[in-house]
Amino acid sequence: MAQLDHTHDPTLESWVVSANGHSDFPIQNLPLGIFSPAGGAPRGGVAIGDRILDLSAALAAGLFTGEAARAAEAASGPVLNQFLALGAGPRQALRLRLSELLKTGSSNQGRVEPCLHVASDCTLHLPARIGDYTDFYVGIHHATNVGKQFRPDNPLLPNYKYVPIGYHGRASSIRPSGVPVRRPRGQTKPPDASEPGFGPSRRLDYELELGVWMGPGNELGTPIDIGKASEHVGGFCLLNDWSARDIQAWEYQPLGPFLAKNFASTVSAWMVTPEALAPFRIPQPSRPEGDPAPLPYLTEEADRREGALDLELEVLLLTPGMREKGLPPHRLALSNARHMYWTVAQMVTHHTSNGCNLQPGDLLGTGTISGPDQSSCGSILEATLGGKSPISLASGEERRFLEDGDEVILRARGRRNGFAPVGFGECRAVILPAG
Amino acid sequence: MAQLDHTHDPTLESWVVSANGHSDFPIQNLPLGIFSPAGGAPRGGVAIGDRILDLSAALAAGLFTGEAARAAEAASGPVLNQFLALGAGPRQALRLRLSELLKTGSSNQGRVEPCLHVASDCTLHLPARIGDYTDFYVGIHHATNVGKQFRPDNPLLPNYKYVPIGYHGRASSIRPSGVPVRRPRGQTKPPDASEPGFGPSRRLDYELELGVWMGPGNELGTPIDIGKASEHVGGFCLLNDWSARDIQAWEYQPLGPFLAKNFASTVSAWMVTPEALAPFRIPQPSRPEGDPAPLPYLTEEADRREGALDLELEVLLLTPGMREKGLPPHRLALSNARHMYWTVAQMVTHHTSNGCNLQPGDLLGTGTISGPDQSSCGSILEATLGGKSPISLASGEERRFLEDGDEVILRARGRRNGFAPVGFGECRAVILPAG
Repeated sequence: MAQLDHTHDPTLESWVVSANGHSDFPIQNLPLGIFSPAGGAPRGGVAIGDRILDLSAALAAGLFTGEAARAAEAASGPVLNQFLALGAGPRQALRLRLSELLKTGSSNQGRVEPCLHVASDCTLHLPARIGDYTDFYVGIHHATNVGKQFRPDNPLLPNYKYVPIGYHGRASSIRPSGVPVRRPRGQTKPPDASEPGFGPSRRLDYELELGVWMGPGNELGTPIDIGKASEHVGGFCLLNDWSARDIQAWEYQPLGPFLAKNFASTVSAWMVTPEALAPFRIPQPSRPEGDPAPLPYLTEEADRREGALDLELEVLLLTPGMREKGLPPHRLALSNARHMYWTVAQMVTHHTSNGCNLQPGDLLGTGTISGPDQSSCGSILEATLGGKSPISLASGEERRFLEDGDEVILRARGRRNGFAPVGFGECRAVILPAG
Repeated sequence: MAQLDHTHDPTLESWVVSANGHSDFPIQNLPLGIFSPAGGAPRGGVAIGDRILDLSAALAAGLFTGEAARAAEAASGPVLNQFLALGAGPRQALRLRLSELLKTGSSNQGRVEPCLHVASDCTLHLPARIGDYTDFYVGIHHATNVGKQFRPDNPLLPNYKYVPIGYHGRASSIRPSGVPVRRPRGQTKPPDASEPGFGPSRRLDYELELGVWMGPGNELGTPIDIGKASEHVGGFCLLNDWSARDIQAWEYQPLGPFLAKNFASTVSAWMVTPEALAPFRIPQPSRPEGDPAPLPYLTEEADRREGALDLELEVLLLTPGMREKGLPPHRLALSNARHMYWTVAQMVTHHTSNGCNLQPGDLLGTGTISGPDQSSCGSILEATLGGKSPISLASGEERRFLEDGDEVILRARGRRNGFAPVGFGECRAVILPAG
């Protein structure tokens, strides 16, 4: 697990003044990503306030040595896969050095300043070439809420509390925040129809998830022990696993969701490191009375003590009507990553327990993380009880599902007394009409 | 669809004498793949009899010009993705030129001969870097047989005859023929147990499938019309979708198979081109009386006329006992690709109908292709009725499921009067004990 050190000191400020105060990217965060300045090629960078530090420029300026230089080199190309393969040592060395370079009073300010870009002038890209994408289902309130709609008497299936349920998703259609999503067409069959039809989905939904970027991989045939799982995690992001509920209902038996999900997934562009999230580690929530203990291969003391994450997760909606009236986005949900029934380490260990190989840059999704009540639903399917109970918006509009022109915005933030808050940046996309 | 031309002439012979007679790789086939000679780097090649033509050596010798040279260049690196992206034109030009170079009486024999390697001295690799792997479920006899074990009264779900059912599989664990497969461990729960346990799978199975290599891709948001689908197909192979049935039974609800499948998949190493398979195109089998017509987006005249494939598909088993007694492999099944309920074009069009993007080098599996009777079962689950009715082997051994040391061999061949038979090469792997 990541240790706390002076890079977490809440009194630390940056000479990049926008980083101090309410930024998602204070000097205690230092997430990595891939950006391109206007007219420039994609390259690795670090978010600090409203600026991006260009890692190859900083390398060329001689600002890194040793392990930190090795990490900065691996992170300066058009994808972070090589950086992710290096693991925690070089990543931590880079963090220490970045903290030194960017803190108020740094003797290097004059050499670092020319390496900064104004973030709003840059384009953000996917941080890694995603080999495989796996989505889990560890949000127990979501699993229960959705299960209730299909099986009122028996919402959670018998395997749920033993198996960190997951399935493979589509890597090719994952896009970074800001790229619009086209409403999918597909086969749907309303309950009263005798045959299915084909057309635009009418039950388009978002899913509020945490994404996990894999660091060093494992060889095929070699499982990752639960005690080593966190060493294989390279970073975190937000993930919107867009879902067409009407397509899903008709297609998903017996092999799971396919076209209902693979038309698009959106991730936030910054990769928040395990080090930045170290202050927000919490013990695994106690399992409710009567729940089985996890099997031994999923059990470890450190993971029990600090394997869960206390991160606020938020969904906001901006409709055409709200945009027209100049209204701010409407908060649809406030949830928290602590509502995960399984930890990230348990996800990684379960995934590899059969010998399946994970690779640097693979993406794992947690599945939708809903909280226990109606204000913390991570999907509109849950928030509107399957479209039956519409949401009323300040613009006078109503929503049962997403409409064309709607923009969904996910946000996340760690907050804890005695620590600087750390944010993820936004994961947002607007819905385009079916083509 | 691919046209017939003089490269399909059954009287054509090669000066590579091993290509004439009973080889999988006569001059009418000319499949592409990636190989490395002893001590050499992986590179593109073409199988001809028991030899491999080194494409970069042939390029360097000046044996290609124009479109054929463009194709050979794209195929001479360590993966065929660039070649696949080029599509049918350059691929067909390369085929024409290869046929000329390798046929008996070619004036170029002396210049081509130095570019040949003895295949048995070479290592074969995956032909492409696989971005995403999707497995379908188009073998209707398999779906019915397996469905019967779970739902005796209602084996086929209501969506089966409308939706070419598919799901995403794991790309990272796909290996070429010859790489051993380690028996997976996992959670299983026998029906009489109150809780699941964790250990080596005891119900390990093969699945006989055809694999489809994608050629040119489509942009995210832009479906591929059924009339254009075949232009996006780059080649074919055999695929063994190894399955741990006990892990599958416990984990697969509600999101589909995951660890039961993703520990390994094996493909045959040679990519058989659509041109080589043109003689084995047949009309779609008529749907049984009472079956619904496919929806319009899955319907097209040319696909109806010649969208299906007449390819013999075979599963053989070689056990440690048979190896010890010097017995040949035992044939477990003889099936045929004509038993697919949906065509490859329908699979491609359905996959992209929601805008999902396919990319060159993506792999589609058909799902297990069983025939209508007990001698044509594409999985041991079907052949032994879920392990209840063991198979007796000439070695005196019995099998309910696969045992350690067992080797499964898949073969495929097109045969048609008036044409040379065309084979796929083997897709084989031996089972190693759980680690």
